Amino acid sequence: MSAVTYELIKTCKQTGARLGKVHTPHGSFETPVFMPVGTLATVKTMSPEEITEIGSKIILSNTYHLWLRPGEDIIREAGGLHKFMNWDGSILTDSGGFQVFSLSDLRNIEEKGVHFRNHISGEKLFLSPEKAMQIQNALGSDIMMAFDECPPYPAEHKYMKDSVERTSRWAERCLKAHERPEDQGLFGIIQGGEYEELRKQSAKDLTSLDFPGYAIGGLSVGEPKDVMNRVLDFTTHWLPDNKPRYLMGVGSPDSLIDGSIRGIDMFDCVLPTRIARNGTCMTSNGRLVVRNAKFARDFSPLDPNCNCHTCKNYSRAYIRHLIKADETFGLRLTTYHNLYFLVKLMEQVREAIKADRLGDFREEFFEQYGFNKPNAKNF
Amino acid sequence: MSAVTYELIKTCKQTGARLGKVHTPHGSFETPVFMPVGTLATVKTMSPEEITEIGSKIILSNTYHLWLRPGEDIIREAGGLHKFMNWDGSILTDSGGFQVFSLSDLRNIEEKGVHFRNHISGEKLFLSPEKAMQIQNALGSDIMMAFDECPPYPAEHKYMKDSVERTSRWAERCLKAHERPEDQGLFGIIQGGEYEELRKQSAKDLTSLDFPGYAIGGLSVGEPKDVMNRVLDFTTHWLPDNKPRYLMGVGSPDSLIDGSIRGIDMFDCVLPTRIARNGTCMTSNGRLVVRNAKFARDFSPLDPNCNCHTCKNYSRAYIRHLIKADETFGLRLTTYHNLYFLVKLMEQVREAIKADRLGDFREEFFEQYGFNKPNAKNF
Ligand SMILES: [Zn+2]
Ligand SMILES: [Zn+2]
Repeated sequence: MSAVTYELIKTCKQTGARLGKVHTPHGSFETPVFMPVGTLATVKTMSPEEITEIGSKIILSNTYHLWLRPGEDIIREAGGLHKFMNWDGSILTDSGGFQVFSLSDLRNIEEKGVHFRNHISGEKLFLSPEKAMQIQNALGSDIMMAFDECPPYPAEHKYMKDSVERTSRWAERCLKAHERPEDQGLFGIIQGGEYEELRKQSAKDLTSLDFPGYAIGGLSVGEPKDVMNRVLDFTTHWLPDNKPRYLMGVGSPDSLIDGSIRGIDMFDCVLPTRIARNGTCMTSNGRLVVRNAKFARDFSPLDPNCNCHTCKNYSRAYIRHLIKADETFGLRLTTYHNLYFLVKLMEQVREAIKADRLGDFREEFFEQYGFNKPNAKNF
Repeated sequence: MSAVTYELIKTCKQTGARLGKVHTPHGSFETPVFMPVGTLATVKTMSPEEITEIGSKIILSNTYHLWLRPGEDIIREAGGLHKFMNWDGSILTDSGGFQVFSLSDLRNIEEKGVHFRNHISGEKLFLSPEKAMQIQNALGSDIMMAFDECPPYPAEHKYMKDSVERTSRWAERCLKAHERPEDQGLFGIIQGGEYEELRKQSAKDLTSLDFPGYAIGGLSVGEPKDVMNRVLDFTTHWLPDNKPRYLMGVGSPDSLIDGSIRGIDMFDCVLPTRIARNGTCMTSNGRLVVRNAKFARDFSPLDPNCNCHTCKNYSRAYIRHLIKADETFGLRLTTYHNLYFLVKLMEQVREAIKADRLGDFREEFFEQYGFNKPNAKNF
């Protein structure tokens, strides 16, 4: 039996969205789910206890960053990433591929792997399917990701086809190199850009390898939202019902709902935590930039409809003061709220699936959030 | 009846140190006590809930900083500093005097008050006894401090004598200007540098005004520790037994013990929080710089003898990693530990007073900490 399994509980009659449960060696979580990102073994500004309090049962951490700092050896010696960072819930680690392709200007892709430079020190590095597995085995995450090539957007058909084929060969090598399948579930990543037949080929290649879960990569890389939705429409179709589907790098409220409607079960993104550190909040009534001068004497909560610890105890005026004065606690408060907002949103999505009304929920949420207004501000 | 009262519970037979209790409109706390500093309405990196968890019942906040940001009007509109920052315990605010004299190069002292420049914007400002009272009345702190002149160390006798006399006249004006004596207790500040007869004169002037508490200012400004101890020896002598005594700006473990032995009841300092943000910790075995490379693979807690949340759950290796990677959570962990360490130290001091053995406790603590070693590192 695989270390990670998926249980499909119900399909929304109105939209086809899936309510499910993912089981991992560190507990189970309901899906669709949003996973907070803890790049360097910490969700920026938060404690693990706060992540639990918010209701998250799975976080994501970044293989590339942990490989460079503190190094996977130290984490293995600590007893793995869970012990190192005092997080007893599930952890998903990416493969490092995305960072290699997005952070490094100087890279050289070969069949064996990728030569590139450390984005901090400039030091020469090499990452391959085998190395990505070795690092993730040392980290001991519950869900590991295969090492894939992440092509730029847009990319020519020929480039994309070669890339998809290489990613499939790399996926096979990842499976072979994975040394702890009884402890850690390895997910494959479907690539193919916006080309339907390449997505189909990629899905076919990867599902033939029978991974315990599949990610859809190469989206949320700058393409318009309707392109993302179209790709999801034809890609999830090729994925098995009994495995979880993970859409990488997506965290805006509209895309979380639209992705769920298209059969996605898992999402992650730095968006809620990154904008929080800039004083921008997600609220039920849309985007709120709490840094703005107009909130200087506003003693109401960030979101009057939110029950999070921040909104129950702190005012916009106080949070604005803290952020203007460069006080860390302000970033803790906005980060906490934004993560809570997305976790609650996914709870509402799951409730709507149960009630076969996710389409209606989408309309209500979009209307209140303001997505239906012309020139609505997203993030 | 004054808003703030002091109850002397017991005097240590071995040292003369005082065990007591201070009652304020926002609760009571036992003394001797160390007060964490929350300069800008936040103890840097901490939440108010964490301060409570650590065991602190009183924090200090800075009038000068809050006057500039966000401004006392906003805090009054919020319902006072307690509501603004969600802290229901006691708050002591300083008068702004120390910042005017330490942060501003350009200042002009007149009988009416001090002209100086905003240390951030360069804007011209004026602070006087009346203005310091008006701001602190708007903040609504439980304990307010009189506006005093803070002379440099060392200062000539003549300069110090004039300064002491002006501080006494200013103290009288503060009492007159204080508009909320039923809600807020105003403490006077004894000055006089290292001159015994000036300390005596200052104490005589101020105690004749019958403040509900007295601070000893002008110490911990660069003088050697034995000078501080000598000044305390002859100054506390002139203070009434039924009022609390507050030694301003002191937070190193040895000085907290030595101050308690000399009859001091209250202390504050940015030391534990400031050094924490630089990766330096106070432990029962002395100073520990967790940033150091030798802790990269050290999976033991900051202080094996500490029961704080940090030490129970996180390793030196993890904290070092976070601090090296500029992750906020690392500073939260070290700050939490350092504050806990001092709060526990003061608990131990109070226990030792109860048992009439503070002198013995001092010896044991100094021995384990390493203060008795030649060239012992303090902070
Ligand atoms: Zn909230
Ligand atoms: Zn500790």
